[in-house]
Amino acid sequence: MGSSAYFRASDWHAPKTFTFACQPGGFRLESGRALSPVTVAYETYGCLDASGSNAILIAHALTGSALVASSPDAEEEGWWDGLIGPGKIFDTDRYFIVCANVLGGCYGSTGPASLNPETGRPFGMDFPVVTIRDMVCAQKKLLDYLGVKRLVTVAGGSMGGMQALEWAVVFPGFVSSVISIAASERLTPLAIAYNQAGRRAIMDDPDWRRGDYYDRTFPASGLSLARMIGTITYKSNETFEERFGRKLQGDKSDYYNFFQDFAVESYLSYQGAKLVSRFDPNSYLYLTKAMDLHDLTRGYTSPAAAMGRIRARVLLLGISTDLLYTPQEVRGLAVELRRHGVDASYREIQSPFGHDAFLIEFAQISRLINGFLQGEY
Amino acid sequence: MGSSAYFRASDWHAPKTFTFACQPGGFRLESGRALSPVTVAYETYGCLDASGSNAILIAHALTGSALVASSPDAEEEGWWDGLIGPGKIFDTDRYFIVCANVLGGCYGSTGPASLNPETGRPFGMDFPVVTIRDMVCAQKKLLDYLGVKRLVTVAGGSMGGMQALEWAVVFPGFVSSVISIAASERLTPLAIAYNQAGRRAIMDDPDWRRGDYYDRTFPASGLSLARMIGTITYKSNETFEERFGRKLQGDKSDYYNFFQDFAVESYLSYQGAKLVSRFDPNSYLYLTKAMDLHDLTRGYTSPAAAMGRIRARVLLLGISTDLLYTPQEVRGLAVELRRHGVDASYREIQSPFGHDAFLIEFAQISRLINGFLQGEY
Repeated sequence: MGSSAYFRASDWHAPKTFTFACQPGGFRLESGRALSPVTVAYETYGCLDASGSNAILIAHALTGSALVASSPDAEEEGWWDGLIGPGKIFDTDRYFIVCANVLGGCYGSTGPASLNPETGRPFGMDFPVVTIRDMVCAQKKLLDYLGVKRLVTVAGGSMGGMQALEWAVVFPGFVSSVISIAASERLTPLAIAYNQAGRRAIMDDPDWRRGDYYDRTFPASGLSLARMIGTITYKSNETFEERFGRKLQGDKSDYYNFFQDFAVESYLSYQGAKLVSRFDPNSYLYLTKAMDLHDLTRGYTSPAAAMGRIRARVLLLGISTDLLYTPQEVRGLAVELRRHGVDASYREIQSPFGHDAFLIEFAQISRLINGFLQGEY
Repeated sequence: MGSSAYFRASDWHAPKTFTFACQPGGFRLESGRALSPVTVAYETYGCLDASGSNAILIAHALTGSALVASSPDAEEEGWWDGLIGPGKIFDTDRYFIVCANVLGGCYGSTGPASLNPETGRPFGMDFPVVTIRDMVCAQKKLLDYLGVKRLVTVAGGSMGGMQALEWAVVFPGFVSSVISIAASERLTPLAIAYNQAGRRAIMDDPDWRRGDYYDRTFPASGLSLARMIGTITYKSNETFEERFGRKLQGDKSDYYNFFQDFAVESYLSYQGAKLVSRFDPNSYLYLTKAMDLHDLTRGYTSPAAAMGRIRARVLLLGISTDLLYTPQEVRGLAVELRRHGVDASYREIQSPFGHDAFLIEFAQISRLINGFLQGEY
């Protein structure tokens, strides 16, 4: 694979950007370290009303970007096109939709590939650890700048759902409702273990060089393997059975060739290789770490103290075949939120697609969100 | 880590060995290729009776060896000590217990680390692909040599359970009963995907050198990561929650240090490093491939034709929390076997330990096997 096939931050067509905290020490992180300046890349759809109160914030998942919906000036499809647009559940004729690339990401927001003003070179592993809470605080700066006074809802799946819930705790007065899909208040040790395996794959790649690879060979095989491991956990055996079963990729007469792949293997290799062209390995490290470290109740005297802050109505959607955030786990969070006085509902997306269903089952998700926004639950 | 910490076939204290097929082309494999000579390392416990009909064969899992039970001359503990010994469910006072290292393994049987007689150097990736059926056929040669006329039972877990079932199909007249634990008739695409990720980890390690590393640097990081991925699938979130939860390995005040591990991460790193000292990466590749390629019904005109050959009584044990071979899957196999006229029973091991329960829940397994051997089901 030529180096042109690898991700380069400079190749990224950045959407709108907002830069703040230009003074040294400007943006204080949860860790105590600071970043300055901080750039947030974002996209908006629809128009903000005069009172600044028709905004919806969408938060993306691990390898997502601000391009949540297609727009005339973007070449790519949006990752939630099925939910966002005129007449859709997040109706751009009614709402002002905002989506920002997360802090630590590689799609235009400040992250490990950004220039470290102290050295003039990319941060690499000198980038500070960022948290889900830090991401939310950076989004708040952006919304203030855009003139948003209050969010109708904040919605997201997976890491996006973690951000949505965090919003309700950190800025309770700013959020009317939260829609968190296939996400929980903190990762299980099983989910942490999968993230660790992915990080290990990247960090064991000799081309990773402790993160200092930006002007050298890209750690492609490490990122590719990390993505393969991740992809397995985003799917379900039902999906794999349906799509691939035990079909071979190549010639059946070659069954006993060690290097012959099953179709499922080819698919995973392809998914791995595809991410290499569009994502920064160091961002993969920092964002999975942010997920691992996240705990909605961390820093409060008790879970009750954290969850009791929430004023928003909350809709939690679990996915029937999710291996990573099991429906039991998501339902359990709804029970816990209600115990702490939160107006929280749980509904289940019935899908064979595993965790990835939040990017696929748009008809079902729209129906479930509609009931919630109509106040039926 | 010094190279002395890595696995070397020559360091392995081989138990008894039996060598056969010394003529070129001697042992014909399922692939059509041949191996000669073939050595099978094995261990026996108890005494064979005069009629050769009190033998029990135990088949080991992916990284197991012939040392299924402790013996006076072995320094190590046996991996099924809880089930094998005087007065235990596999009673060495009554039965002649045999366990052989599988073909393709690295504990004394012919495998990729063995010398290729054509070159005088280790086979490496010139080793032919071997199958579960090939392993069983090699075991049959050993049993013939030992004077075993009929097996009271053949038992194993995971890859061992796959072998046990294969025995009943390939040598139906030789096997009175089969006990297959946490295994199925063929891997799901999800299980293949996990195996692929492990193989990819090894093959992406630059020290792997297409398998030609025996006199060079050992591909330790690749094997270690493969084992980490495997270990995740052998456990359950219940086990991880119980043992580790979200505890940090180090200092809580260092929460935002990127290189700080959660306890579950340290545990997995430790498990990875441990395998490096005792297993050959190429064997890991070949044995996972053998599992992927295995299909109990392959080569027969229909599943009915394959399963209809079975004359043995069959006990299938599933594990309630097994992520890799789900209890639903194992139960489904029992239903299918019965549909094809096999006297097959299903029982479930209730355990939080996931797939690994077959190496842990000895009291429950003994009780379930006892009922089966007593003819209660």
